[in-house]
Amino acid sequence: MERGYIHVYTGNGKGKTTAALGMSLRCICAGKQVFFGQFIKDWSYSELKAGEFLPDFEIVQFGRGCFISRDPTEEDRRAACEGLIRCSQALQSGEYDLVVLDEVNVALYYDLFGVADVIDILERRDPRTEVVLTGRYAPQEIIDVADLVTEMREIKHYFNEGVEARAGIEC
Amino acid sequence: MERGYIHVYTGNGKGKTTAALGMSLRCICAGKQVFFGQFIKDWSYSELKAGEFLPDFEIVQFGRGCFISRDPTEEDRRAACEGLIRCSQALQSGEYDLVVLDEVNVALYYDLFGVADVIDILERRDPRTEVVLTGRYAPQEIIDVADLVTEMREIKHYFNEGVEARAGIEC
Repeated sequence: MERGYIHVYTGNGKGKTTAALGMSLRCICAGKQVFFGQFIKDWSYSELKAGEFLPDFEIVQFGRGCFISRDPTEEDRRAACEGLIRCSQALQSGEYDLVVLDEVNVALYYDLFGVADVIDILERRDPRTEVVLTGRYAPQEIIDVADLVTEMREIKHYFNEGVEARAGIEC
Repeated sequence: MERGYIHVYTGNGKGKTTAALGMSLRCICAGKQVFFGQFIKDWSYSELKAGEFLPDFEIVQFGRGCFISRDPTEEDRRAACEGLIRCSQALQSGEYDLVVLDEVNVALYYDLFGVADVIDILERRDPRTEVVLTGRYAPQEIIDVADLVTEMREIKHYFNEGVEARAGIEC
């Protein structure tokens, strides 16, 4: 039986969620099933439309992204925890070849749930299921359980020059 | 008029081509047109099927990937140069919102064409066209003309543990 590995995309550079989307596209092209859970993000991202084009691509957003500019509320925490449960079900079900927990590291950074909870659902997953965890601030415990970790390091970024996020490029 | 920027994904970590694929998917979800030219890669990659699912996604491979284990031949060079011309046409045409030159940095590293040629086609592009250049070994001249550069840094990689590339994940 083929084993599924744990990938982490972290760091302060552009390309983490983008790489998880690319991996999803590649999986679907190989006839696989993908569950893509997004913590933190708000509801305007173009990738939400990807399910219209791609068979076997399920993308779900949990909670609101807007709390990043202030402290998370109980509602944010509840939404994130419900999201974690949805991801846990997807990981255990054996129905998906790839499960993405997008921005889960940021959810951990904001203490929306604990790192032990995340490691627990990873350990209980169907062993054939591949997992991708994204977001800056990946804690050491996540890096320790991962099989593959890439740090996206910002060398140059036009946001620093005042360019704003654009539909289809960043969002 | 909206300006198109130059993105570079480089470094030794996993996620460069993958991020370019993800950006393509996001662009298409936003109703944009994408040309994805692959230098170096061989013909077995799952992403070649992406055009079957995605409207307005044109993916073309140039030459053979197999030369990396030996010196490139004249045939490899000719195929790469033809590929650069195809990319140049796509960049100038104004028909594409995003043009990807996948693994172009590796083609430069193997001296299949010169960095001045690449910079020239970037400068002559339709100014609204966004460009992504991928591949390890991005030369300084490319970094200098880029607006956004991310280095994918390998922190941990299961290839080092003997895991082989798998369809839908790496290829």
